[in-house]
Amino acid sequence: MAFQGKKLINDPNDVVTEFIEGLVETYPGLQYLDGFPQVKVVLRADVSGSKYDKVAVISGGGSGHEPAHAGFVGEGMLTAAICGDVFASPPVDSILSGIRAVTGPMGCLLIVKNYTGDRLNFGLAAEQAKSEGYKIEMVIVGDDCALPPSQGIAGRRGLAGTILVHKVAGAAAAAGLSLSDVAAEAKHASEMVGTMGVALSVCTLPGQVTSDRFGPGKMELGLGIHGEPGAEVTDLQPVDVVVSHVLKQILSTETHYVPITRGSRVVLMVNGLGGTPVMELMIAAGKAVPKLQLEHGLAVARVYTGSFMTSLDMAGFSISIMKADQTILQRLDAPTKAPCWPVGVDGDHPPAKIPVPVPPSRLTRSDEALSRPQELSQQGYILEAAIEAAANEVISLRDSLNGWDSKVGDGDCGSTMFRGATAILEDMKKYYPLNDAAETVNEIGSSMTKVMGGTSGIIYDIFCKAAYAKLKESTSPVVTAKQWVDALEASIAAVSKYGGARAGYRTLLDALIPALEVLRERLDAGDDPVVAFVLSSEAALSGAESTKHMQAQAGRSSYISGEILASAPDPGAMAAAAWYRAAALAVKRKFQAS
Amino acid sequence: MAFQGKKLINDPNDVVTEFIEGLVETYPGLQYLDGFPQVKVVLRADVSGSKYDKVAVISGGGSGHEPAHAGFVGEGMLTAAICGDVFASPPVDSILSGIRAVTGPMGCLLIVKNYTGDRLNFGLAAEQAKSEGYKIEMVIVGDDCALPPSQGIAGRRGLAGTILVHKVAGAAAAAGLSLSDVAAEAKHASEMVGTMGVALSVCTLPGQVTSDRFGPGKMELGLGIHGEPGAEVTDLQPVDVVVSHVLKQILSTETHYVPITRGSRVVLMVNGLGGTPVMELMIAAGKAVPKLQLEHGLAVARVYTGSFMTSLDMAGFSISIMKADQTILQRLDAPTKAPCWPVGVDGDHPPAKIPVPVPPSRLTRSDEALSRPQELSQQGYILEAAIEAAANEVISLRDSLNGWDSKVGDGDCGSTMFRGATAILEDMKKYYPLNDAAETVNEIGSSMTKVMGGTSGIIYDIFCKAAYAKLKESTSPVVTAKQWVDALEASIAAVSKYGGARAGYRTLLDALIPALEVLRERLDAGDDPVVAFVLSSEAALSGAESTKHMQAQAGRSSYISGEILASAPDPGAMAAAAWYRAAALAVKRKFQAS
Repeated sequence: MAFQGKKLINDPNDVVTEFIEGLVETYPGLQYLDGFPQVKVVLRADVSGSKYDKVAVISGGGSGHEPAHAGFVGEGMLTAAICGDVFASPPVDSILSGIRAVTGPMGCLLIVKNYTGDRLNFGLAAEQAKSEGYKIEMVIVGDDCALPPSQGIAGRRGLAGTILVHKVAGAAAAAGLSLSDVAAEAKHASEMVGTMGVALSVCTLPGQVTSDRFGPGKMELGLGIHGEPGAEVTDLQPVDVVVSHVLKQILSTETHYVPITRGSRVVLMVNGLGGTPVMELMIAAGKAVPKLQLEHGLAVARVYTGSFMTSLDMAGFSISIMKADQTILQRLDAPTKAPCWPVGVDGDHPPAKIPVPVPPSRLTRSDEALSRPQELSQQGYILEAAIEAAANEVISLRDSLNGWDSKVGDGDCGSTMFRGATAILEDMKKYYPLNDAAETVNEIGSSMTKVMGGTSGIIYDIFCKAAYAKLKESTSPVVTAKQWVDALEASIAAVSKYGGARAGYRTLLDALIPALEVLRERLDAGDDPVVAFVLSSEAALSGAESTKHMQAQAGRSSYISGEILASAPDPGAMAAAAWYRAAALAVKRKFQAS
Repeated sequence: MAFQGKKLINDPNDVVTEFIEGLVETYPGLQYLDGFPQVKVVLRADVSGSKYDKVAVISGGGSGHEPAHAGFVGEGMLTAAICGDVFASPPVDSILSGIRAVTGPMGCLLIVKNYTGDRLNFGLAAEQAKSEGYKIEMVIVGDDCALPPSQGIAGRRGLAGTILVHKVAGAAAAAGLSLSDVAAEAKHASEMVGTMGVALSVCTLPGQVTSDRFGPGKMELGLGIHGEPGAEVTDLQPVDVVVSHVLKQILSTETHYVPITRGSRVVLMVNGLGGTPVMELMIAAGKAVPKLQLEHGLAVARVYTGSFMTSLDMAGFSISIMKADQTILQRLDAPTKAPCWPVGVDGDHPPAKIPVPVPPSRLTRSDEALSRPQELSQQGYILEAAIEAAANEVISLRDSLNGWDSKVGDGDCGSTMFRGATAILEDMKKYYPLNDAAETVNEIGSSMTKVMGGTSGIIYDIFCKAAYAKLKESTSPVVTAKQWVDALEASIAAVSKYGGARAGYRTLLDALIPALEVLRERLDAGDDPVVAFVLSSEAALSGAESTKHMQAQAGRSSYISGEILASAPDPGAMAAAAWYRAAALAVKRKFQAS
């Protein structure tokens, strides 16, 4: 199976130069040499070769491995990066230009991944630069652990471990060390690191077709960063198994590629190959650390997780393990301005997890569970009556609500509200602290959200919680009419804020907002609170009826024609008006009775 | 077309908890609440709620957008991140736990992307927290500019612009501002930012099949970060065209989503959606900046390019533009320890490109071009004879070299060497400065690499450059025998170092290393230099012959059986021995003649 790869690019021949243009727009600390299309060199904007008083550290190679290498240019890491075309070694002239641009009297270290083209081109540039009077050293990195040892020239491939070598060398150079000392540290670091890659797909070169070399359900172990074949193609495994295999391969005592033994201190790099989400990289890192600790007996000092040395859009990752003595750790931790070196990875590890905090209410509230008072206050008695009437009204309306909802929604409004109302009646008998109006309102919300599920349950819970918080502002056990109005206003504001609805959106607010307005108006005018409550409940009812003429703004109703909508009011608004009016009438009856 | 998506995970139900475990292994500044599987909260390890003396800033939502939101937890940005399951809003209890864990007396700002589930769950948690005595504010971000304005509840979706709001709020909180001031800055920032996304593929949820909704050669404009349908599916366009379209849409004066007009200062975010390589993101950024400047008349103050708010493995990017007043810019530039906030993006932009440095040789060397001396020194005369003899010998061997190479290689060794030798003879007549041995050797390398191409040209150029650098160490115009030996040794070392071959690898070194050994030995023993040269050339010849019995270590030869290899010597070694011996004999003849 092969298909034209999709990429967000312009001309495939321009990808590297256009990448560099975007890079320097993003990072003001970087510049490039004005020599496109041949010379593609990114360098520190603050370094001027002849005057530079530190050892310059240069790396590079074929492009397609971004952010490597240009994203690692910056104080404390690379001084310049030489970018070849995609997966092609840069030409000698380009490398030479980079050397000339940043190398001062302290000289220059070239860090080269072990590929023949890179070795030769960087090598020739090094010799040319030497003949021009520059002091040059070169360190070759071959960290691949996937293939058995070869006595040949090709040797081990240079992979993501090279990034760690860059960091060590860059920090050594920044510390003012001599060229030979910087080169020695880089060489030492290169001998301490091993890497192995795993991929789910090969990469697609710009302008070329994609081949699904592995096939569905397959993965490849040990492949290179240009899609070179690896050790084997196998069935896709859980990442746990993959990580175990890769770690064993890197730390194999047969190949002994890295001198890591039980008790060693190491750093771990989990490197995405370009098309792998951070989530998967972090999962691999989270599995690798305990395996290194428990199965291999190693101390893991640092973990670097991210996409550092990629293969275009390849899905997969590589794991690198570097033995970290005190000097290496110090170099890795040293500050750098290279934009793509990971931050926040050093420092001691506190315990990874801390306990979930206990709600303060459980701490402050007395230990006894909520319970229905043995004797009700006058307010508790009226509150009970209001809640009972409201709930029963909603229960009696189940079929009507379902009927309206079947025209404009998904037909379950009545059933949902029925569940909520039933739960309220049951829970009230068991434990509502009816003499405490605020707490009772709070419990109503909890009863509803518990059984109703979905949006309507949570909206009623928000409604109740907002009222609760408002009512709790007063310490008096008796709630005044003014406080009830303020609580209703807070509830409406919260539902509107979190739910996003406003007046006229064909929701329960179209019953409650008119009710609030009339209630406040009548109370301000000096009306008796019970009279005002009953009057406002009429406003609720007519508000709910008026939703017939409103266009829906959310949910299924918003896809339904105005004609059909006009045949039914919003069931949520009708339910709200119904329980509000039932409560008002119950309160009126109680006051008349008393 | 649908297929099982390939992912490097374990159980799809565990991806979020395993992500968090890996995250805290990577970043020691982060912790999580010990409440898996329900409570998935990442928080700053250095903040203990009740004692925290700044405003806490919390965000979160469904997972699958990594590094958002947990990667932005850190001093100066988020105090905690609440992680839902993939693309699912986190439950109220999880949000509440996060609030309780990090909120001190200054209160807590919740920053919520505009999705109904998030609004309601964070809203209910906010109300619950308020009722527990916490000071809570909530700011909802809806920065999507892809769809026409809607009057409905759903409104504009929250996209990558939310990250910029996090940064502004986090910096304001770190500066010690009050909750209402932090909330006001966050709200202001949310009103200044617009975003639009473009995708080449939809994402694959863990454990689910991938649907290629768009089809080959298609892209979708304006889709959401959960793969929700966008404005339109179109043919894949060059990224230039895509970027232009997206910028126009965000800055549209019809929708007027963001109050940005000509002359405004803005920041740009190019955000990868998970499966898009850095190269493509940088190309988009590089195109967006000049378009914003020239086509829209805006000043671009900062560019943030990377993958900040992803959609699992979706290929594509979003562009966000935020109008940046002085306060916003200050907040964006403020330091943060959040590990995934981009570094190195602030500060003034120096000129993006600087001139390619001129080679120092052109500065120091006199302006006159290289030229053949009008009169040759004695050394120049001998050198000319040696070069001429060596080149002619190689020319005469073309067919033999090709013959050997056709058995063990790709059959063109003779032809390649022939081209090099011919170029040397031509160039020598024109401009070799024969009285300066070092410069002449240098030019031989240039002649060869120019016409030979590939590996062998560059190896001979390295050989000559290394000799040149060694010879240039002396300022005397006359080169001693000792200096020639040192130069040969440097050449062999360079070829071995950069090419990777050693003695016995069946390469030209198997001729030259024995020659060097005999030459140095005879000179040390006090032999006449010419005699020593001739003797060493016999060692070169027998060394080259001995390659028949060597196993190849590189190139095509390494795949060929020992039996076949034994039928031919290495042609590269034979060529080297031949020119070396021809030069030695020519020198002998000249000395005898003089």
